[in-house]
Amino acid sequence: MKALNTVPFVSVEHMMRLVLDLGVEVCIEQIADYIEADFSKWETFDKCPRIGSHSDVGVIELMPTSDGIDYGFKYVNGHPKNTKEGLQTVTAFGLLASVYTGYPTLLTEMTILTALRTAATSAVATKYLAPKGAKTLAMIGNGAQSEFQALGLKRVCGIDTVRLYDVDPAATRKCAANLAGSGLKVIACGSAEEAVMGAQIITTCTADKRNATVLSDNLVGAGVHINAIGGDCPGKTELQRDILDRADIFVEYPEQTRIEGEIQVLDDDHPVKELWQVITGQVEGRQSADTITLFDGVGFAIEDFSALRWLRDALQMSSKFVDLDMIADPDEPRDLFGMVMREVNRMAEDEHGKAA
Amino acid sequence: MKALNTVPFVSVEHMMRLVLDLGVEVCIEQIADYIEADFSKWETFDKCPRIGSHSDVGVIELMPTSDGIDYGFKYVNGHPKNTKEGLQTVTAFGLLASVYTGYPTLLTEMTILTALRTAATSAVATKYLAPKGAKTLAMIGNGAQSEFQALGLKRVCGIDTVRLYDVDPAATRKCAANLAGSGLKVIACGSAEEAVMGAQIITTCTADKRNATVLSDNLVGAGVHINAIGGDCPGKTELQRDILDRADIFVEYPEQTRIEGEIQVLDDDHPVKELWQVITGQVEGRQSADTITLFDGVGFAIEDFSALRWLRDALQMSSKFVDLDMIADPDEPRDLFGMVMREVNRMAEDEHGKAA
Repeated sequence: MKALNTVPFVSVEHMMRLVLDLGVEVCIEQIADYIEADFSKWETFDKCPRIGSHSDVGVIELMPTSDGIDYGFKYVNGHPKNTKEGLQTVTAFGLLASVYTGYPTLLTEMTILTALRTAATSAVATKYLAPKGAKTLAMIGNGAQSEFQALGLKRVCGIDTVRLYDVDPAATRKCAANLAGSGLKVIACGSAEEAVMGAQIITTCTADKRNATVLSDNLVGAGVHINAIGGDCPGKTELQRDILDRADIFVEYPEQTRIEGEIQVLDDDHPVKELWQVITGQVEGRQSADTITLFDGVGFAIEDFSALRWLRDALQMSSKFVDLDMIADPDEPRDLFGMVMREVNRMAEDEHGKAA
Repeated sequence: MKALNTVPFVSVEHMMRLVLDLGVEVCIEQIADYIEADFSKWETFDKCPRIGSHSDVGVIELMPTSDGIDYGFKYVNGHPKNTKEGLQTVTAFGLLASVYTGYPTLLTEMTILTALRTAATSAVATKYLAPKGAKTLAMIGNGAQSEFQALGLKRVCGIDTVRLYDVDPAATRKCAANLAGSGLKVIACGSAEEAVMGAQIITTCTADKRNATVLSDNLVGAGVHINAIGGDCPGKTELQRDILDRADIFVEYPEQTRIEGEIQVLDDDHPVKELWQVITGQVEGRQSADTITLFDGVGFAIEDFSALRWLRDALQMSSKFVDLDMIADPDEPRDLFGMVMREVNRMAEDEHGKAA
């Protein structure tokens, strides 16, 4: 029987090994299934905006949510200046707990897990919105997310070709090298124009911390599906505004996306559709072969929750965790003090045992 | 040099050993110093109410705060029905992080640490508010907090006698046994009336989850200081209302105490004084030898923050922690995928090494 006072903990090392055991594509596909399941019961979730603590150099956020059975939250920071100091811009960890007992059920690193769930979310959106038979992805921005995005769309949506472009050719070389042997046909391109040639799906995922035009209107043809992933905070967008005016826009949680997403440049009442309603069939996804569909993804707490649920379930068949002694468990709840004091005696016995 | 990608973690076991190494009284006294220091710069803190997720059977809360240098939060649940199922009503853990980098700097169990900080907070309030020369404490409610409260007041305020009362005589016996040998004169009493005889300080700390009268007006003489600790959520109070009308009331954070504390039964504009202003000298504490002072303590995020800071500093001279591999640390920030993939090669080499 599982000890009540321990919490399974997945370290960065264990997460890497778990991902390698299952395969990156399988992980993304499974998480996509959990996201779809959770988005299908969207209305049962306790939703709130991120709870941020801002400073001059960055932000620390807590993103809690609950479906009434499990409770989850992610801790995540954003410190653009960290890179110069040899640190990560973003680090993250997450926790799952039982709503019924209040006891934590999982603690985990979430930097790698967030990369997987972000790719899984794009895959879900693309599955519902991309034109039928789409096989070619243009991946603009070849940074930390790019390989995960490409492999997620390969596995979940069946793409077979990825056309890469980044302002920094070294990033494109890195991404192409990492995707070699994946089964995808990988084409390194010298410009965004070249990258979008023949692509039915365009994913933009750049790291610029300002409003930038990584995709201009003239590059977006009729019928294309766009995942705009990189714009995820106020003042950071990637698309030329004209694209937004031509596109059918789909979002996770409008209250958050209007602040953080591409649509921050539009009026507050500009019509958007919610991805969960497309999944449940309440709202039509792609209306015609000519429609430009845009998934304006910013990352929402429910996706982290889905990823945490997936990981907890995946650990049922894996040894890639350790048990952390995080919860005090006195034999008699009113005697916390006695529990601490009895530890003296136990330590003394241990010492005696060693000496004997 | 400390690895950048690990976070010191203090388990329940390590916390017990640390407390035993330093002594319970020393821990409470040191934490009281940290609380006083933090309350002295109250206005520099980012304060917000608890962020709660409520269900039919309990609540899960996040309590974040920051002083601009450190960021801390506590996770705490409250599930009264848990006891019947052999589980704790309350479990807690906490995290400290650097505001400058966003990196976590400490993860710890917080059930024991919360007991220490709650005692430390009462000790700080009592130090500023109790009548001069107070030597006798009446401790009403002899549950999990009682020993910590008594020892905190002994160490910080110089009491030498504690008079115990609980509706359950077994709780009083447990508390008396735990305090034997502490240097306090311990007197088990058969009623609240008997307990308050000759006491200059009364601490109420009962667990009843409803409005109860554990202390009635006729038992409270002029000049007494009361710490009312047990009333800490809507619908849970301990004092007869007449006491509140006669007393000078001191609180941590009025916005929270008016919802959770004894004063929830008073009008929203009933005058209260803030403990931090007494500490900084902006508000007078005890006005006369006859004043009844009441500290209506509910527990505030800054006290947890102080306790987390204390623990982080205490670990500088202790080995009572382990390093958790919680933060992904790719050599090249844009190459998270490559970091995961290179792990394959490292594992293969490890296997090769073992085979050789």
